[in-house]
Amino acid sequence: MTHDDLRGIVETALHEQDRDTLVARLADQIPADLADFIEHADDNRHRIELLMALPLQRRADTFGYLTLHRQQQLAEHLPIEVLAETMTLMPADERADLFKALDEDMRRNLYMRLARKEREDMRRLASYEEGSAGSVMTTDYASIHTGMTVREALRTLRLTAPDKETIYLAFVVDSAHLLLGTVSLRELILAQPDTRVDELMKRDVIFARTDDTQEEVAKRISRYDLLALPILNHDDTLVGIVTYDDAMDVAEAEATEDMHKGATVGKLDGSFAEVSPWSLYRSRVHWLVVLVFANIFTGAGIALFEDMIAAHVALLFFMPLLVASAGNAGSQSATLMVRGMATGDVTGKDWARLLGREIFVAMALGLTMAAAVMVVGIFRAGVDVAMVVALTMIIVVMVGSLIGMGLPFLLSKLRFDPATASTPLITTIADVSGVLIYFSIASLLLDLV
Amino acid sequence: MTHDDLRGIVETALHEQDRDTLVARLADQIPADLADFIEHADDNRHRIELLMALPLQRRADTFGYLTLHRQQQLAEHLPIEVLAETMTLMPADERADLFKALDEDMRRNLYMRLARKEREDMRRLASYEEGSAGSVMTTDYASIHTGMTVREALRTLRLTAPDKETIYLAFVVDSAHLLLGTVSLRELILAQPDTRVDELMKRDVIFARTDDTQEEVAKRISRYDLLALPILNHDDTLVGIVTYDDAMDVAEAEATEDMHKGATVGKLDGSFAEVSPWSLYRSRVHWLVVLVFANIFTGAGIALFEDMIAAHVALLFFMPLLVASAGNAGSQSATLMVRGMATGDVTGKDWARLLGREIFVAMALGLTMAAAVMVVGIFRAGVDVAMVVALTMIIVVMVGSLIGMGLPFLLSKLRFDPATASTPLITTIADVSGVLIYFSIASLLLDLV
Repeated sequence: MTHDDLRGIVETALHEQDRDTLVARLADQIPADLADFIEHADDNRHRIELLMALPLQRRADTFGYLTLHRQQQLAEHLPIEVLAETMTLMPADERADLFKALDEDMRRNLYMRLARKEREDMRRLASYEEGSAGSVMTTDYASIHTGMTVREALRTLRLTAPDKETIYLAFVVDSAHLLLGTVSLRELILAQPDTRVDELMKRDVIFARTDDTQEEVAKRISRYDLLALPILNHDDTLVGIVTYDDAMDVAEAEATEDMHKGATVGKLDGSFAEVSPWSLYRSRVHWLVVLVFANIFTGAGIALFEDMIAAHVALLFFMPLLVASAGNAGSQSATLMVRGMATGDVTGKDWARLLGREIFVAMALGLTMAAAVMVVGIFRAGVDVAMVVALTMIIVVMVGSLIGMGLPFLLSKLRFDPATASTPLITTIADVSGVLIYFSIASLLLDLV
Repeated sequence: MTHDDLRGIVETALHEQDRDTLVARLADQIPADLADFIEHADDNRHRIELLMALPLQRRADTFGYLTLHRQQQLAEHLPIEVLAETMTLMPADERADLFKALDEDMRRNLYMRLARKEREDMRRLASYEEGSAGSVMTTDYASIHTGMTVREALRTLRLTAPDKETIYLAFVVDSAHLLLGTVSLRELILAQPDTRVDELMKRDVIFARTDDTQEEVAKRISRYDLLALPILNHDDTLVGIVTYDDAMDVAEAEATEDMHKGATVGKLDGSFAEVSPWSLYRSRVHWLVVLVFANIFTGAGIALFEDMIAAHVALLFFMPLLVASAGNAGSQSATLMVRGMATGDVTGKDWARLLGREIFVAMALGLTMAAAVMVVGIFRAGVDVAMVVALTMIIVVMVGSLIGMGLPFLLSKLRFDPATASTPLITTIADVSGVLIYFSIASLLLDLV
């Protein structure tokens, strides 16, 4: 049965309030798919019915796959006992995220209904700043004590497995919960049962601190191919882990944020498909208005040469093409740099070498584009203008490219986010410089002729 | 000892040809860090010395962390026996990638030096098309036979563990190597030793085909939080797996490619920091030249109104600001759409709803920006021109936004990559329409006055 067939059956069952069919049909679906189903249901009443048709653990798993915004909506419609039950079975990190998103009243109400362990856990996790390692970590990690044998360690892992996000990596701690090392389940099942875990464990542990950024955490997990990264407090005690699947989500969200920034879109309150018009407006309006004012400089540049333009209106024909070319070449350089810096491909040390290469590449690009525009120029406006246009092209492409390369680097030196060097910002700077360079060259060369 | 201290010691050792210090100092470093060291060494001679100072398995692991381009360079400098030895110990997928990158002669030479298993494996993996699931999968997966007990399965996993990329997920196959289900090591160690794996295994397996795209593979791994995704042939036999760490690399590479595309940068031959100027030139020149010609239309649009402009040169002051605003709003919409479609946030069904929301948001943005420009307009050019400029602003921001939203969608309907709706392309289209709209409105309204 295809996904669409199932969707049809489920929708009919929902409309006919046929709970038995719902329960039967949803029983063998995977949480990620169930969440998708629920997201695409007609309304929240149907969503609640779908959730209630699931057995408890499945419901908790599915709930965790919904967007935070949707979880928040549905939490308000679920009976509070059901919500408390569901949240108890959610992974600690997802539970804390949802808890943070609920309103004061609801939080108080829920709090009383949770067990002490979940309460404390949640309070701790909810206290970390958004975007920090602490805010994405989970406390459901498997720890074993220093001095244990492999046999004891395996027994501990077996006993605690149901509550842990992963048992494939176990964290060896002492009685003060200081992290001493890690040992993988692979190593444990290959070792002799009487070996001490201290002999097996890897002591050079890669870790992060609770106040490191989630971006840094995701990078480290990806760089070292880790299943999970331990998160330490400043006193070196182990307080949580971030697993690879959460790191994938963080990496995706960070890439999305960087792409949005590159087009001057600010942080959205939720996914693009789901956010409210008002939230979308707020995330977009800021830079648009700033750039309106920035673009006044380009207008002022043109105004500076008003008399000359009035005398040679034909020059205007080439203006858009020249300033756009500067902006396009600049956007390419800026995007390459910003992404290179984000992935760690480009570091500060590379700067001089990359600048040298860029001058060379931009020169070659400028020459190619000058040749293209020369052909048009000769036909349209004669050799003199064509020469001016071609010369301008080479210069503006080089200037645009160097601004595009330099600005992200400068921003990062000044401790701003290099991604602020957005395409529209680069385009605006290229527009101003393009106009000034073009008309300056034209007034110099054409007056000489 | 910090990373930089170590770097100093290693560099001194390299210059003094002090091999013992090298061997001792590098002994407890992690492959990912060692690869970083090697990448940043002065030249290939030093890189080879560093590699040769590592024990064999460590050398193979480290080699795999180098960029493919670097592996290819170093392969030419390593003695062929050492290369064969190293490649034998590399994971199957990395070995096949490197093999594909070597030249004919070297391949033949190497081929003779590898064992039959590695040879066949490599030949098979190297035959899949670049960017397909087959090309990123590895054949080092753990399989167990249907009918085995948990005890037998665990014994099999223990015996084969050293050669497998992961033993945390085992694939249950029949004698024809058809994939019947998966069972996790967690489930195996929790189960009774006499249970049959067939009772434990999950039969609804998420998988991909060898000719699915690597992007699809990464998406599926991320969506279902998998440790590894099985890759099937068209006859449903299991031929490989893709592990989560490779999926992370694919997701990062795909995001980079999409960002580059968004700024009209084509596929690079390697990482941005490392590619040759010529390769960088080729990846950038194509769209730049296309857009030079596309921008002629904007020039032609201006030429259409040459007489009016000559009479009212003051109008030019507002032109850059208006066309830039249209382009900026359009870039925002296009970037939001392209990324939303890439992550699966936006699907075809959302289109009508998103369009409705966009009209609303673009109207609000246009009004805000019109208000901003109105103030400037009145001071600069009087009420009449200010009215024309404000009205134009509202219209061009809406037109730009709708083009930005519509183009990626249209491209995907026509089976092109929506990411082709790059910011420079949107800006160019917005420029042309902006010029035409502005001067049309101006000629209509200002002639009336």
